[in-house]
Amino acid sequence: MNELEPIRVELGARSYAVHVGRGNLGTVGARTRAAAAGAPVALVTNPTVDALWGDRVRASLAEAGVAATTIEIPDGERHKNVATLASLWGRLAEARIERGGLLLALGGGVVGDVTGFAAATWLRGVAFAQVPTTLVAQIDAAIGGKTAIDLPAGKNLVGAFHQPGFVLSDVEVLDSLPEREYRAGLAEVVKTGAILSAGLFERLETESGRVLARDPDLLLDVVHECSRLKATVVSADETEGDGRAILNFGHTLGHAVEALQGYEGILHGEAVSIGMAFATGMSEGRGFLRPSTGRRVRDLLRRFGLPTEVPAGLAAAALARAMEADKKRAAGRVRFVCLEDLGRTRFEALSTADLEGLVSEHLGKNVG
Amino acid sequence: MNELEPIRVELGARSYAVHVGRGNLGTVGARTRAAAAGAPVALVTNPTVDALWGDRVRASLAEAGVAATTIEIPDGERHKNVATLASLWGRLAEARIERGGLLLALGGGVVGDVTGFAAATWLRGVAFAQVPTTLVAQIDAAIGGKTAIDLPAGKNLVGAFHQPGFVLSDVEVLDSLPEREYRAGLAEVVKTGAILSAGLFERLETESGRVLARDPDLLLDVVHECSRLKATVVSADETEGDGRAILNFGHTLGHAVEALQGYEGILHGEAVSIGMAFATGMSEGRGFLRPSTGRRVRDLLRRFGLPTEVPAGLAAAALARAMEADKKRAAGRVRFVCLEDLGRTRFEALSTADLEGLVSEHLGKNVG
Repeated sequence: MNELEPIRVELGARSYAVHVGRGNLGTVGARTRAAAAGAPVALVTNPTVDALWGDRVRASLAEAGVAATTIEIPDGERHKNVATLASLWGRLAEARIERGGLLLALGGGVVGDVTGFAAATWLRGVAFAQVPTTLVAQIDAAIGGKTAIDLPAGKNLVGAFHQPGFVLSDVEVLDSLPEREYRAGLAEVVKTGAILSAGLFERLETESGRVLARDPDLLLDVVHECSRLKATVVSADETEGDGRAILNFGHTLGHAVEALQGYEGILHGEAVSIGMAFATGMSEGRGFLRPSTGRRVRDLLRRFGLPTEVPAGLAAAALARAMEADKKRAAGRVRFVCLEDLGRTRFEALSTADLEGLVSEHLGKNVG
Repeated sequence: MNELEPIRVELGARSYAVHVGRGNLGTVGARTRAAAAGAPVALVTNPTVDALWGDRVRASLAEAGVAATTIEIPDGERHKNVATLASLWGRLAEARIERGGLLLALGGGVVGDVTGFAAATWLRGVAFAQVPTTLVAQIDAAIGGKTAIDLPAGKNLVGAFHQPGFVLSDVEVLDSLPEREYRAGLAEVVKTGAILSAGLFERLETESGRVLARDPDLLLDVVHECSRLKATVVSADETEGDGRAILNFGHTLGHAVEALQGYEGILHGEAVSIGMAFATGMSEGRGFLRPSTGRRVRDLLRRFGLPTEVPAGLAAAALARAMEADKKRAAGRVRFVCLEDLGRTRFEALSTADLEGLVSEHLGKNVG
């Protein structure tokens, strides 16, 4: 086992550590015991992840003397809904999870979001911890305490800010990710470099081959560095003022594309990749960003096999309306994250008409 | 209009005022405008309350220039559930309530609890305000930020701590309460005196006739004083450490009685009255409380027409199991609130076996 220096998310009494390593999954038992202090634990996961890693986690919990009930929720973004949440609440009652108890989320973003929201609301709030098993969950979703479910009306419309007691990321589990899901996770890696660290971005450019090959040492470094950058942002801004809002880079159009596709046939990271291509093009159009820099972002996304064009058949007006439904909205205008340079962002307040015009323009040309 | 001095709930950045008056319902518009700062408002109520007071509130909002969408949820404790919450979330999406928006709860405890929980979770948290229309909501439920829904497995199992922006209590609306509901509210008034203020308790004893007659001046004083006492407790302990937990006096058995009755045929205050009779008897049995003081509590409850005996047909074992399912539980033991004197409480940690024994004993005798 190889574990890098723990990353602190600094939030006063709600501070916690993110442990990034390779082969460190076996530490989950001891860490859970310390966080739950003897109270009952629910291990929440999905059947796919359970089959791959459930036994290792349960063995670690048992070894540490932690009594845990496994609760499976269905796999897939379309199950991140009220029905899954209500069923999970019912299972927590059956498992007799008390106020001192802890929910351990083992899985990707859906498991983490639903489990975190259940923990935020069960008995008006119990502890939870994250063991993310996808790249996007390790570097983004599991860190920062954003929990949510989707409604028919939109993604993540209902949720809570609820910080985990710890996050444990074992990059070894990423070896088992399907290629497409791994690449979708790389979209958030590119995003992290683009908005927060020119150094990380350049390393991804020069070592793109090793990144795609999931080189163990490089992957450990990249996940640790992305986690560190995310932790820095969250520590400075827990509940989405301007600091945290820059993480929405690529997400405004990305969410709209996902929504119009009915969350089918496109992965979140793929939609974010399309959104970043749009956001860089739009930033260039407004004169904020050098075209050569925008091109580097899009080139890297393509090298990682990620889409940069809006899927055929989606109209500008519908996309603009879907963007306007985005919850990062105030006084009827969407706060849109633009890029000024690698590692530097700015906000633009855009009306639905602005958005429709920009998307029309974007659809009308092939961005290079 | 006559409004007493505002009561502050002191919770740092989440501090707020409780305004208690007679005929002050018309101030809701201006207060909402100040709290919502121009963003869309949802007025959440039920059909019964809407028919009585909805138009007055809407007129006040319109006069203050506040745009509000009325959303009705079904009336009654049995609708304080996931289905009502999910439907309310959907209506908030339709009403396009943004992050700066506000939910205004107009109704009793069910409306306040469901609306508050929806506000805690909509877009990961928006503002809300309480306009309680029952006695129990005015003096208890609306103050302190406890929000919740019930599950089939138990009452208030899911919820959040989410403080309102303000609470506005107009005792004039209490004139329209059905007699039985008004008397059920008096159970929480008696509780407040018993656990927090011998002075209030004695005033209720000496002026019980005026209390029952809903004497306008006395009612205003009593609601203000109970609100002030609740605010003091909540200010000292937002999230239920020992300070706030004393408010559960009478609630452990009370909740169990409600649960076993399926929340039908008994009002919350009536169940709490039964629970207080049990808790005083038990406190006497353990030698904590003088029998003459316990008798005063039970006498006052009876003078207010409230029940003090467990309904026929409920068995001690079933009651003990239902109490053990109570969420105020740690390490398998229920923390039970006992009375030591008027205005003074203590906790006892009880096992299910203890509880069953105590309930058996209680059922076997007529407490005087």
